[in-house]
Amino acid sequence: MTRTIAQQAELALLLEVATTPKPGNVDRHRDHGDLRFEHFLAGTVGASDGLRALADPDGPPIGVAFERAVEGMSDQSGGNTQFGGLLLLAPLVRAAALGGLTPDRARRIAEGTGVEDAVGFYRAFEHVDVAVADPPEDMDALDVRRGSDAVPAVRQRNLSLYDVIERSADHDGIAREWTGGFERPLEAAEAIETRDGPVTDRAAETFLDMLATEPDTFVAINHGEEVAESVRERAAAARDGRVKPDALAEELVAEGINPGTTADLLAGGLFVALCRGVEV
Amino acid sequence: MTRTIAQQAELALLLEVATTPKPGNVDRHRDHGDLRFEHFLAGTVGASDGLRALADPDGPPIGVAFERAVEGMSDQSGGNTQFGGLLLLAPLVRAAALGGLTPDRARRIAEGTGVEDAVGFYRAFEHVDVAVADPPEDMDALDVRRGSDAVPAVRQRNLSLYDVIERSADHDGIAREWTGGFERPLEAAEAIETRDGPVTDRAAETFLDMLATEPDTFVAINHGEEVAESVRERAAAARDGRVKPDALAEELVAEGINPGTTADLLAGGLFVALCRGVEV
Repeated sequence: MTRTIAQQAELALLLEVATTPKPGNVDRHRDHGDLRFEHFLAGTVGASDGLRALADPDGPPIGVAFERAVEGMSDQSGGNTQFGGLLLLAPLVRAAALGGLTPDRARRIAEGTGVEDAVGFYRAFEHVDVAVADPPEDMDALDVRRGSDAVPAVRQRNLSLYDVIERSADHDGIAREWTGGFERPLEAAEAIETRDGPVTDRAAETFLDMLATEPDTFVAINHGEEVAESVRERAAAARDGRVKPDALAEELVAEGINPGTTADLLAGGLFVALCRGVEV
Repeated sequence: MTRTIAQQAELALLLEVATTPKPGNVDRHRDHGDLRFEHFLAGTVGASDGLRALADPDGPPIGVAFERAVEGMSDQSGGNTQFGGLLLLAPLVRAAALGGLTPDRARRIAEGTGVEDAVGFYRAFEHVDVAVADPPEDMDALDVRRGSDAVPAVRQRNLSLYDVIERSADHDGIAREWTGGFERPLEAAEAIETRDGPVTDRAAETFLDMLATEPDTFVAINHGEEVAESVRERAAAARDGRVKPDALAEELVAEGINPGTTADLLAGGLFVALCRGVEV
């Protein structure tokens, strides 16, 4: 007996939040204000039906299954826990269900989304507040914060989910993976496979390396690009042994800085690593 | 949208292991030798199919569904994580599925088990090593450690799961609840409902109170009744403010003492509390 694909995705979300230290994020040893560890546990359990729909080769369009996952995730009092992680997992889980998790297959699934996927995506914003960047002025009708109210405009322009996400690829790290072939979660999976020790320790090292390599876009959206770049530099100092990772974790939580996109990318990496047979 | 009954059970298992301090047990801040936090996460995810079968009013006999849950739980490298918790949850989950979680209904389900339930229970021991007491000499054929090899004897004597469990009620805290009306998990649920703060903090206070009230039978099986009684006294000191609960947690882990039955009872209490509407 082995875990199903949906169970691997669920476990990936749980391992992500358990991974510590994961500077700035909720982890096994740190809450983040009113956003607490147990909200991520409840968010994961709530998302499980949507994950099963994603893992069903004959399931609904991935945007529709994603909305179901987000709806379930939101059934806890902490707010947004794993919106970005689920958005990243959606094409990866469906790819695994359709015969194997290759970059090519995930890319084809992302590119093959249609207007119903886009509608599901917009509806998902009805269930939870998600911090997003302001849209360009001429895009106001398609602002994701409009939620279902944007659906007529989405249908009228016959936009696919890929089209919608592509418009954020310049400033959103999840969108960048969707349109760029999922390179970073795949690299994270390789790092997790290659390292030694308990899986959450390997994931913690991988997280720090990811945060040290590229500025976190969620930090950039909330605090500006300069802050995101400075967090990247501080993560590099921690990765290179000039600062203790736990000290950086305490500092970022105290500063209210939350590199949530890098955590979402790690969840994707953990999912791929589990599918490739990494043991827990 | 709210969590399904199976999802409440899954979340109860996750909240149980996240609850800290939970002296002597794996919790959010402590591993226990090679038995680590992430093994409980994987154990919970693996158990989810079995929990769904338990939560299906038309599902298989609860002993059969229990075996499925244990098989999935065992798909991680830490060993036994939640065997006792799942055994306690089995009648509670089925009771919730059959129209409401009352003590009467749970008791009727336990008493109404048959030989197929008992067969499932014995088979569950094939999947994982569980620390149990030696059986009386005349009971050797029914030693649970025989696993499937005991099934012919179980069938020949037409034993129900209730019959089998009743024989352990003098020395096993889960068996005591099965045959005693599930009083302690129900009391735990009330305590969790009544207290204030994040649900895992309420659960931690409840755990300490339970450990201070009755000797843990898993400690008694592994270390003898005197040690179990001394752990109870030390828990009472922590509960009454004479010792820091975190200090007791460090001590018990260092001594290799693991009050696992009390943790299982807490998981049952968390499940009941979630079903009654306690928010996460």
